[in-house]
Amino acid sequence: MSNILNVRYDSKPIYDINITDDFSSIIDSITGFMIPGRKVCIISDTNVSKFHLDDMIRLLESDPASTFLRIDSYVIEAGERSKNTDNILSLIKYLIERKYDRNDLLIALGGGVIGDMTGFAAAIYLRGIRFVQVPTSLLAMVDSSIGGKTGVDLDGYKNMVGAFHMPKYVHINVNALKTLPEREHISGFAEIIKHAVIKSSDYFEYLYDNVCPALDKDVTVLKKIIYDSCVIKRDVVEEDPLEKGIRAYLNFGHTIGHAIEKYYDFSLLHGECVSLGMVVSSYISYKKGLITLKTHEKIREILRAYGLPVDLSDIRRYSDIEFNPDEIIRITANDKKADGNMIKYVLINDIGSVYIDKTVTPDMAKNALREAL
Amino acid sequence: MSNILNVRYDSKPIYDINITDDFSSIIDSITGFMIPGRKVCIISDTNVSKFHLDDMIRLLESDPASTFLRIDSYVIEAGERSKNTDNILSLIKYLIERKYDRNDLLIALGGGVIGDMTGFAAAIYLRGIRFVQVPTSLLAMVDSSIGGKTGVDLDGYKNMVGAFHMPKYVHINVNALKTLPEREHISGFAEIIKHAVIKSSDYFEYLYDNVCPALDKDVTVLKKIIYDSCVIKRDVVEEDPLEKGIRAYLNFGHTIGHAIEKYYDFSLLHGECVSLGMVVSSYISYKKGLITLKTHEKIREILRAYGLPVDLSDIRRYSDIEFNPDEIIRITANDKKADGNMIKYVLINDIGSVYIDKTVTPDMAKNALREAL
Repeated sequence: MSNILNVRYDSKPIYDINITDDFSSIIDSITGFMIPGRKVCIISDTNVSKFHLDDMIRLLESDPASTFLRIDSYVIEAGERSKNTDNILSLIKYLIERKYDRNDLLIALGGGVIGDMTGFAAAIYLRGIRFVQVPTSLLAMVDSSIGGKTGVDLDGYKNMVGAFHMPKYVHINVNALKTLPEREHISGFAEIIKHAVIKSSDYFEYLYDNVCPALDKDVTVLKKIIYDSCVIKRDVVEEDPLEKGIRAYLNFGHTIGHAIEKYYDFSLLHGECVSLGMVVSSYISYKKGLITLKTHEKIREILRAYGLPVDLSDIRRYSDIEFNPDEIIRITANDKKADGNMIKYVLINDIGSVYIDKTVTPDMAKNALREAL
Repeated sequence: MSNILNVRYDSKPIYDINITDDFSSIIDSITGFMIPGRKVCIISDTNVSKFHLDDMIRLLESDPASTFLRIDSYVIEAGERSKNTDNILSLIKYLIERKYDRNDLLIALGGGVIGDMTGFAAAIYLRGIRFVQVPTSLLAMVDSSIGGKTGVDLDGYKNMVGAFHMPKYVHINVNALKTLPEREHISGFAEIIKHAVIKSSDYFEYLYDNVCPALDKDVTVLKKIIYDSCVIKRDVVEEDPLEKGIRAYLNFGHTIGHAIEKYYDFSLLHGECVSLGMVVSSYISYKKGLITLKTHEKIREILRAYGLPVDLSDIRRYSDIEFNPDEIIRITANDKKADGNMIKYVLINDIGSVYIDKTVTPDMAKNALREAL
């Protein structure tokens, strides 16, 4: 059984997200928009390729329509540090040397790093070629595969270079999560819980009630969660495709989260940092009298139930660097979410309702870091 | 007196091109879309900055609305070789270090290289910021400042990396051409004559009748020519913004032109190579019985009248490399205008009417190079 979700841009249907439990139906979708006789390059990383690359190649080779005269693969070192402009230029050189033209296709087979890199390379190679997302991490399934946002790092500056470039199609095989390491699986739930907090108290309750099957990778529960999260993200992105307004709600937990990620030199995963950022933003919302202490504790509790870090002792499992709120808040000022001199925070009115706040002072943020974590 | 031309995308007005005879009115246009208190970075090259950078800075400083709290300038070594990914990344690092955000502005003050680099940097920095084009070469005024096509070179592969990114505004000061070297001024007429050949026999006749005032930089004649060329390019680009169909007509002379440019290692200017490419494409059209010998000769004649190269003796003024038609045609096969294995040529039915032809064999092209040049 599969659930198909359409993503629109400017009220026009642009691409489908297929949430299913194997890879096989990818063939039908690709032959729907490719004419035969083209080339395809599968871009993957050293972890994911071990589990899924051969299957994907065999599947594309078995295509009865012979869409692809040639199937290439390009494998990048796994890890966040690979997501940089040097690797983008190396990938593009590979495409030039292998004579890829505007009618050929890229497939991103991997997590967020592979999705971002493939999407950005597809955005700028020959001023834009088509690509398909096959996210294999939970984070990529519910987050980076929707909305066309791509970004890579330059000289350690995170995501400073990128483009908006929509995939032609997104294929989500929930069973691919079976090979995902547990820490990464857990990390994906940070963005999922974020979706619930910014948009839906019902979804929040569902997540609260289904911690065990979700962590145990129950296919039915995961399909529902991924579908619901994709719908929330899609609705936000469709309303604000170029991030001029409410799309900023998706940055809930990210102002502090990104700074923590950078401060601890990326020894914590993105979702882990977003979890800590959400705890702090929730606490600021409580201190501003927007939500009750009980609501704040409920948010902290669900994050902890999913195994996500919520305090300093959790951070110490991953890093020896001493906690320094002043330095973390200093880093937020360099974040590109800064608008002029004001730092933007997404704060909570209630579970399911958030807004953009530009009045949080550095001192308020520092105190919140000290008291909440 | 100024002439304003609006460029639309998807039937929506996107930006104005102001064809005028000084820089001063740029202030009014910029304050029309910028809110005060922002930063601006003027990007220019070592040639153009000598003549116009100080004037532009003074002009922006004199803005009564104080739109810009800070005015930076970034000067790149003049020349086609600067248009590469290394220089793009250096420029972006400068913007990161100077803390440019999504509300700040870039101004491209220079020819096509500066326009392409600024446009591409603006396209990918923070996934897109705004930029203004102030073209100072004839080529940039009639060609690269319209249509949002940006592209830079990677490892000597021309324009392989780029994006479609529209400027917010284009300001053309015809008097800026007074400081343009003669060879570059002449080179700009290749694209202008191309516009006439692909779209308008009346415009062709006007150009034929006004060689001297156009070459002598008569302001009235240049304003008319730039306006007419911008209208032709705009109409083609509006009809086909993402280069899926008739925009390819603008590649008339470019299949061979690009190969010549590369073969002679960029010792000839882009317009000079396009002129040679148009002679060859016109000759192929004649050999295929599409146009008469007289029409072919008329095209050759107008190019020569404007001082553009049309044969081997002209090429020898700029390069000692021995003419090798086989190698030049081999290079066309690597051009990104190749569609699968077919090389696309724009051929002529009549002056003012062209079409895309995919039946020109390598042998036909080689013979045309030998016989026409």
